[in-house]
Amino acid sequence: MGGSTLGAALRVTTFGESHGPAIGAVVDGCPAGLPLDEAVIQRDLDRRRPGRSSQTTQRQEADRVEILSGVFEGKTTGTPIALLIRNTDVRSRDYESIKDLFRPGHADYTYHQKYGIRDYRGGGRASARETAARVAAGAVARELLKREGIEVYAYLLQMGNVRAKRVERAAIDANPFFTPDPDIVPEMEKLLDDIRSSKDSIGALVEVVAEGVPPGLGEPVFDKLSADLCKGLGSIPAVKGVEIGEGFGVVARRGSEHLDAITPTGFATNRAGGILGGISNGAPIVARLALKPTSSIGIPQQTIDVRGEPATIVTKGRHDPCVGIRAVPIAEAMVLLVLADHWLRNRGSRL
Amino acid sequence: MGGSTLGAALRVTTFGESHGPAIGAVVDGCPAGLPLDEAVIQRDLDRRRPGRSSQTTQRQEADRVEILSGVFEGKTTGTPIALLIRNTDVRSRDYESIKDLFRPGHADYTYHQKYGIRDYRGGGRASARETAARVAAGAVARELLKREGIEVYAYLLQMGNVRAKRVERAAIDANPFFTPDPDIVPEMEKLLDDIRSSKDSIGALVEVVAEGVPPGLGEPVFDKLSADLCKGLGSIPAVKGVEIGEGFGVVARRGSEHLDAITPTGFATNRAGGILGGISNGAPIVARLALKPTSSIGIPQQTIDVRGEPATIVTKGRHDPCVGIRAVPIAEAMVLLVLADHWLRNRGSRL
Amino acid sequence: MGGSTLGAALRVTTFGESHGPAIGAVVDGCPAGLPLDEAVIQRDLDRRRPGRSSQTTQRQEADRVEILSGVFEGKTTGTPIALLIRNTDVRSRDYESIKDLFRPGHADYTYHQKYGIRDYRGGGRASARETAARVAAGAVARELLKREGIEVYAYLLQMGNVRAKRVERAAIDANPFFTPDPDIVPEMEKLLDDIRSSKDSIGALVEVVAEGVPPGLGEPVFDKLSADLCKGLGSIPAVKGVEIGEGFGVVARRGSEHLDAITPTGFATNRAGGILGGISNGAPIVARLALKPTSSIGIPQQTIDVRGEPATIVTKGRHDPCVGIRAVPIAEAMVLLVLADHWLRNRGSRL
Amino acid sequence: MGGSTLGAALRVTTFGESHGPAIGAVVDGCPAGLPLDEAVIQRDLDRRRPGRSSQTTQRQEADRVEILSGVFEGKTTGTPIALLIRNTDVRSRDYESIKDLFRPGHADYTYHQKYGIRDYRGGGRASARETAARVAAGAVARELLKREGIEVYAYLLQMGNVRAKRVERAAIDANPFFTPDPDIVPEMEKLLDDIRSSKDSIGALVEVVAEGVPPGLGEPVFDKLSADLCKGLGSIPAVKGVEIGEGFGVVARRGSEHLDAITPTGFATNRAGGILGGISNGAPIVARLALKPTSSIGIPQQTIDVRGEPATIVTKGRHDPCVGIRAVPIAEAMVLLVLADHWLRNRGSRL
Repeated sequence: MGGSTLGAALRVTTFGESHGPAIGAVVDGCPAGLPLDEAVIQRDLDRRRPGRSSQTTQRQEADRVEILSGVFEGKTTGTPIALLIRNTDVRSRDYESIKDLFRPGHADYTYHQKYGIRDYRGGGRASARETAARVAAGAVARELLKREGIEVYAYLLQMGNVRAKRVERAAIDANPFFTPDPDIVPEMEKLLDDIRSSKDSIGALVEVVAEGVPPGLGEPVFDKLSADLCKGLGSIPAVKGVEIGEGFGVVARRGSEHLDAITPTGFATNRAGGILGGISNGAPIVARLALKPTSSIGIPQQTIDVRGEPATIVTKGRHDPCVGIRAVPIAEAMVLLVLADHWLRNRGSRL
Repeated sequence: MGGSTLGAALRVTTFGESHGPAIGAVVDGCPAGLPLDEAVIQRDLDRRRPGRSSQTTQRQEADRVEILSGVFEGKTTGTPIALLIRNTDVRSRDYESIKDLFRPGHADYTYHQKYGIRDYRGGGRASARETAARVAAGAVARELLKREGIEVYAYLLQMGNVRAKRVERAAIDANPFFTPDPDIVPEMEKLLDDIRSSKDSIGALVEVVAEGVPPGLGEPVFDKLSADLCKGLGSIPAVKGVEIGEGFGVVARRGSEHLDAITPTGFATNRAGGILGGISNGAPIVARLALKPTSSIGIPQQTIDVRGEPATIVTKGRHDPCVGIRAVPIAEAMVLLVLADHWLRNRGSRL
Repeated sequence: MGGSTLGAALRVTTFGESHGPAIGAVVDGCPAGLPLDEAVIQRDLDRRRPGRSSQTTQRQEADRVEILSGVFEGKTTGTPIALLIRNTDVRSRDYESIKDLFRPGHADYTYHQKYGIRDYRGGGRASARETAARVAAGAVARELLKREGIEVYAYLLQMGNVRAKRVERAAIDANPFFTPDPDIVPEMEKLLDDIRSSKDSIGALVEVVAEGVPPGLGEPVFDKLSADLCKGLGSIPAVKGVEIGEGFGVVARRGSEHLDAITPTGFATNRAGGILGGISNGAPIVARLALKPTSSIGIPQQTIDVRGEPATIVTKGRHDPCVGIRAVPIAEAMVLLVLADHWLRNRGSRL
Repeated sequence: MGGSTLGAALRVTTFGESHGPAIGAVVDGCPAGLPLDEAVIQRDLDRRRPGRSSQTTQRQEADRVEILSGVFEGKTTGTPIALLIRNTDVRSRDYESIKDLFRPGHADYTYHQKYGIRDYRGGGRASARETAARVAAGAVARELLKREGIEVYAYLLQMGNVRAKRVERAAIDANPFFTPDPDIVPEMEKLLDDIRSSKDSIGALVEVVAEGVPPGLGEPVFDKLSADLCKGLGSIPAVKGVEIGEGFGVVARRGSEHLDAITPTGFATNRAGGILGGISNGAPIVARLALKPTSSIGIPQQTIDVRGEPATIVTKGRHDPCVGIRAVPIAEAMVLLVLADHWLRNRGSRL
């Protein structure tokens, strides 16, 4: 039972491997009549694109998206929207030398154990390359939600110990880190230089905000909006934690300190992060995700090969020293997809 | 589109409100031939039961489970297992006075906005009472996994600022807090006494461990084991964050510090928390969830009524001062259900 | 992977065995605000009830439905509606003698092969008794659709070679066969007397009509309204064929004979049975289902036992000589459930 | 909520319009390790291909399939298998003249009503062209089932009033009608010549047989194998009826005439068509589907335009005079997909 489909009303299925001919997504359930073209999707893809700056992987992928179906004369028709992205800058020979080794921190070992066979080239299906398809699909959701006045944006809140002290939206896309605090860009540069020179990698914290979300999105019990955000964000490669509103900060909090008072003009505070009882309350939705440091590092690691023999491995290939940077548009995409799905689901909540 | 069903191969649907006639669960997809009776389910239910100790709500519910279907002569038949728990100690009049008010932190406001109608008695469907049905269903999953040598247990790692310093499994069920560190029981008692006397509530951190999980559970991309654990645990009432392995600790970590070396006898460390690339790696699975302080407190809160007029509310009813305590068996149930689902799904991964 | 859930937006899960403590259904996804009480459900259940006339099984089941959840102060709340029906007139000893034998035409052999264990009492989960839960759930769908002006009714079009020559709606509930042609009631009585005296059984043809269905219900490609009706009706026990509109009559038809001309006031004819391209066209939906003769007959049959040894069997128990009669309300229920599901799904088809 | 995905364990999602850039399918859930290449899929596609003989549409489509993902070094990897077929012989101008008219019998009117927008070129998503994606996906299922000794084949049992009198498997692919009775080929040719010269079309009856199916496939209640076959076959364009085993013949049958006696060596007869209680019984599965005459005919039809004004239409474009012919490989594909799905699902039925 494959697991490459997300959503109940807006269903997204992605496919493709890092070094196969192409990756892509099929978005089924998008209402008819939504203006859509490749340019709109390309805009989001370009933000995630590898090779975009010197701070991320040097793999050069044009990431040109082609809409194969579901759009007619510039509008969605209600039928599945298939999005195709060809892989072009594939260097599979980079991986020949490690095809029998399990890279620590990667999915090599677990795919091997699960399937008995694996496409070892660039991580195959487990590669972050797959997330381009999510970003493409997320762009469709963005168009849908934009019409409802819902806006989703993310930023790099922290990398290593360098943390943004403020959120300036205009700054986010004006620096290669997607950080919302322009003052910390030099620090981040310095940190990454250090990381790179030591052939290491570093973790990160991404924050996503959704504004304009009406109250009522989310379904009781299992398909809470919060639960589906946890799943959506938790499905991004390298994510080891997800939190909403005050998140793990609630552990040491008293009720009287955490509760958001309700006033005739809205919630006095937003410690809940926009979700109560699993349903959006109209305040901005705020979620954070923790991304582990890139597993591919230039420092020799201890591992085993497919026969179980001990080995030492130095991961080659072209990698981001901090996957958290490019995770910013991916996190947006996941929140967009979950919100669009629940926005559609919520159409059925009342007579 | 309701959201009361979880799982793809083992599908659990729960139903019921806090003050309705009954709550329950239907478990569909359990293989035939599993020994099962009410006693086995009751054992898990009794651990979650309200009124179990002076540290939790004083609502007295026998929580007697009745198996309505799917079991014949002591064994599952492969057909849906319906589990019924009657509500007995219902005091709906406790809620009459607040039926037009939205309790801060609760789902009152969001259900009202979503549905235009709500069962205000005890939180209705959003009540933690619903989780009894999850625990009952989880007990079925526990029986299934036990045969495979998989064992799941949870404990209260932290309440407020009181944190367990060690994990002693035998201690967990020997104290009313489910803490694994017997030495901190007096501190926890003191904290809760303080919380109660100030009519407040307190947050908590629960850790869940799954041992004996074979490598291979979890599906690529969206239905990663980690993503489904995030969803399952994130769907528990009051949860504001979920993390796996090092969790949010990875943000400030370097790759060389985080990676688990692989040796011929297994992983040298378990910073990944048993999951790589979304698939179990054979090491123990470790997850943590952050629970906000109970929203029902005796300190007056500012709110509005259904007409939007400002009001002051003091929540009555019988409540846990720390929902994190009884969340321990619930967290186990969710991990059990997710693991059993993926264990069944994984049967299809190879020829 | 169980198969006891139907629908995507309105999801119905049934549970229960013929001779277990109870059967029931959980309906998730019903919009909030729908007036609903037990009396409305009971009305539909009473039409399906065994022992209703001398023409059907003599098992006496009150079939009292209890609403366990999802309804508050007479209206649905948007949460799962659980419906419970206790089994009361259980005579399991009737089945003791055949517990090791496979009754021809029944699911005994296939359940045994599939599960290795089976509840042999009255057919267990495969019993037509399970359909009471469908009828209860269908009554919820009926209330939902009634508000939209959609009405669903079925009737016994043919039993053996006795076929209705006209459809008089008022006649349907005025005779024990649910036939719409009062003139053939004596013939049907005579046929059934003959069948009973020869200890045999007889097949039947049921027709279902849905009036007032707006155009637009049904989703492209796989979840066509026609395909989901085929599945819903095809899932009723004993059904061996389903057809829509002209059905199998189209095989020998020319295009010029089959096409329904479109006029400014609607379709000139309705050979399509209300569905074009899998989507409702606004004309009445007309479907028919063929039900095989009851497999339980008093004439000795050749079979084998669980050890594979040849045996002769005479089926006892209390049975309908023609399952097609009580299939009438069941067929209505299935069409109601499929239509309600698609009516809800269609809310997402346009911006 | 889109409806372009079929299956629970083996999930197939198709996409694409008749005159868009491409059509395709994503198959998720196929176990790893299955040998697969484009040639194997092409073989099935070639049987369905338009322009294959003078008896079907003259649209020339190479129908070249490209595997985009999920296969590595000639074997499936367990990840989604994406299959792409470019549309090449597109003549959209054929449809310009009728873009504001609703062709009787087609989905034009219903898509327009549902979505308010439609891709009028060649029927868009409702075109039979979409079925090429099903055939490609079905070829994957065929490979999977072949290893289990399951074989599926179909044939044209009847066209108009010309019916095969016997089934000779070798004959099926040796004539342009896929009829299993070589003796009726001249009659079929004559009939089609007549149909063509009168610019009309004709209905057909296709029979599908699955041999080697083990007992146990199919899930209780809703997801019966029979119900899912009814849905799968019922979702093929132009299908108006589906039956299994004796099908509609059971209406006039007595139980003593219909029951298949069970003997130590198997079922004495196969009136049930290989399914009892919704679960395969080990005998060959036999299903039939009725296909309406092609809606595109050269005889003027009465219709309306998008403004509701009356109009006369003569459908142009390149069409099959009998869609039942090319429905043969499509029917095989649907049965293959349903069987493969249930074969995988059944892995979870026992401990």
